[in-house]
Amino acid sequence: MQVSETNEIKWSEVEKQVAQQAFQAAYERETVALIQQIRDSAGVVAKLEDIWQLHDFLSARRHELDGKYDYDYSSLILVFARLIQDGWLNIGELQGLEADKLSKVAALSRML
Amino acid sequence: MQVSETNEIKWSEVEKQVAQQAFQAAYERETVALIQQIRDSAGVVAKLEDIWQLHDFLSARRHELDGKYDYDYSSLILVFARLIQDGWLNIGELQGLEADKLSKVAALSRML
Repeated sequence: MQVSETNEIKWSEVEKQVAQQAFQAAYERETVALIQQIRDSAGVVAKLEDIWQLHDFLSARRHELDGKYDYDYSSLILVFARLIQDGWLNIGELQGLEADKLSKVAALSRML
Repeated sequence: MQVSETNEIKWSEVEKQVAQQAFQAAYERETVALIQQIRDSAGVVAKLEDIWQLHDFLSARRHELDGKYDYDYSSLILVFARLIQDGWLNIGELQGLEADKLSKVAALSRML
């Protein structure tokens, strides 16, 4: 018999679908924006210092993205809040999640 | 009184000028080539994986260049040998160094 932790948030199958779709949409938007940004930055590198600046930027973004897009139901509320706060996701795209989750996401996104 | 280590290689003022000029020329060539390579690679990034490949490439090149272009007379013979081996420097550009240094550089560049 599996014992759930008491503070574990349950996700119905429908909610999981909504979450995965929203997650994927945000990921694609942020990725496309990053690719464009790299193309733009790299097109104007003129000296070695510019290249190392690009490298520093990529190191930071990689670290951030690796952390942010770790799809895990236990941290999804927080992830969605950050994505909304950063403009990669609209709260409307989470319609289908239960009201309690939606209000948590909304409240957290205003606090970040 | 300064005591020199017995195995220290002496560089005359003329040799130092030749060395600095050759070092700078190789550095500029390699830098220009790297900048062009980054522009070319970055222009074709199409997905996140391409960006992380670019990041990995930059991490490796940065580490390599930081080590290689550390101007230090105690390691300059080896550095010149590597630069010749990698095609960034021509042995002819080291004319002005004493014969012993030139033959060490030439011999090392064939061994690397």
